Amino acid sequence: MQEKEIKVMKKILATNDKMAMELRNILKEKGVLFINLMSSPGSGKTTLLENTAKNFNGKLAVIEGDIETTLDSQRISNAGMLSYQINTGPFGGDCHLESGWIKSALEEIDLTNIDILFVENIGNLVCPAEFDVGAHFNVVVLSTTEGEDKPLKYPLAFQNSSVCIITKTDLTPYLEIDLKQLKENIKKVNPKLKILELSSKTGNGMENWFNFLNKNKLS
Amino acid sequence: MQEKEIKVMKKILATNDKMAMELRNILKEKGVLFINLMSSPGSGKTTLLENTAKNFNGKLAVIEGDIETTLDSQRISNAGMLSYQINTGPFGGDCHLESGWIKSALEEIDLTNIDILFVENIGNLVCPAEFDVGAHFNVVVLSTTEGEDKPLKYPLAFQNSSVCIITKTDLTPYLEIDLKQLKENIKKVNPKLKILELSSKTGNGMENWFNFLNKNKLS
Repeated sequence: MQEKEIKVMKKILATNDKMAMELRNILKEKGVLFINLMSSPGSGKTTLLENTAKNFNGKLAVIEGDIETTLDSQRISNAGMLSYQINTGPFGGDCHLESGWIKSALEEIDLTNIDILFVENIGNLVCPAEFDVGAHFNVVVLSTTEGEDKPLKYPLAFQNSSVCIITKTDLTPYLEIDLKQLKENIKKVNPKLKILELSSKTGNGMENWFNFLNKNKLS
Repeated sequence: MQEKEIKVMKKILATNDKMAMELRNILKEKGVLFINLMSSPGSGKTTLLENTAKNFNGKLAVIEGDIETTLDSQRISNAGMLSYQINTGPFGGDCHLESGWIKSALEEIDLTNIDILFVENIGNLVCPAEFDVGAHFNVVVLSTTEGEDKPLKYPLAFQNSSVCIITKTDLTPYLEIDLKQLKENIKKVNPKLKILELSSKTGNGMENWFNFLNKNKLS
């Protein structure tokens, strides 16, 4: 990597981190818990949010990050959650969200009475972990279909998160996944990571996720 | 995005594309078919290569791209394929491979009698599609567990590929995936994309992948 490139990159990250810190404080003052969901494409972030919209008792909003389409925003909206879409396609197809975009989005979202604001980050286990969006908690989502080795191969998303949700537990009878090994690998890269196992489809384990949200609500 | 940043980025892409073109020609002259596999983490690229190593008749080599660990390289090597690992972790954890790194890797790989060289790109459906690594064919891999909407949401990987492999077809009885809709979505973003459906686990459909490789071998 050339020196010029590194300098530009550091400047971007410093600007991003400063604004993220401001956002974190602003939302805390407003009493809005801010949660950033990160995962690969297809790990089940949107389905988790749909189930949460339908079954969690509280007023929720989500900022949906996608390169293209408003498909997720429509799904979440149909489930009854206030939803705002950011598409990065027109801006070079960026593979992550940045705090500046969240700040711009918040100018258009009415946060009155909102208990929890989610960001559904762009489906990518690499880049989103490098950019602080100002959340109070980063949550990394991993499905049982992805294999035991993913925490070791993509450590940053696990190191920069407070909670890891293992989704699609209903599929384990049909997979060769070793859940014990997966959890050991998660603990290897981040011993403090809180692990929740659930199936958004059957509802199994959702109560642990809802308990986590209730415990950390700010108002 | 700032003007300075865009200029740097364009220069990197131009340098990358020039070297990719050179690599493509060099490997063609040597009679080595060069295939770049791209997908999300956990879509089944490594398992596809393991099955290919065991059951395809030909001398194969793979360049494994990962941010961290040599786990995939070990798996492939155990299956009997010549394997070379690139880890981007020490270089900032880049989320894709570039043609310059492939060129460096090739200086250490003995290509004598090799029929097919694979790149298993870093697990990421976004960034790898932006960087030409010099392959004769880009192959995008998508598993049945990832949902019908992924081609619409991450179009570039599908637009920049010649073949799409739908993996884990053995799991479809336990999923709500609409395979017809998935294939329609693939054709929407790239009508020319050749679609192969297979299960590396059961072996179902692997013959179509092997036929594709045999048909396109250069020696």
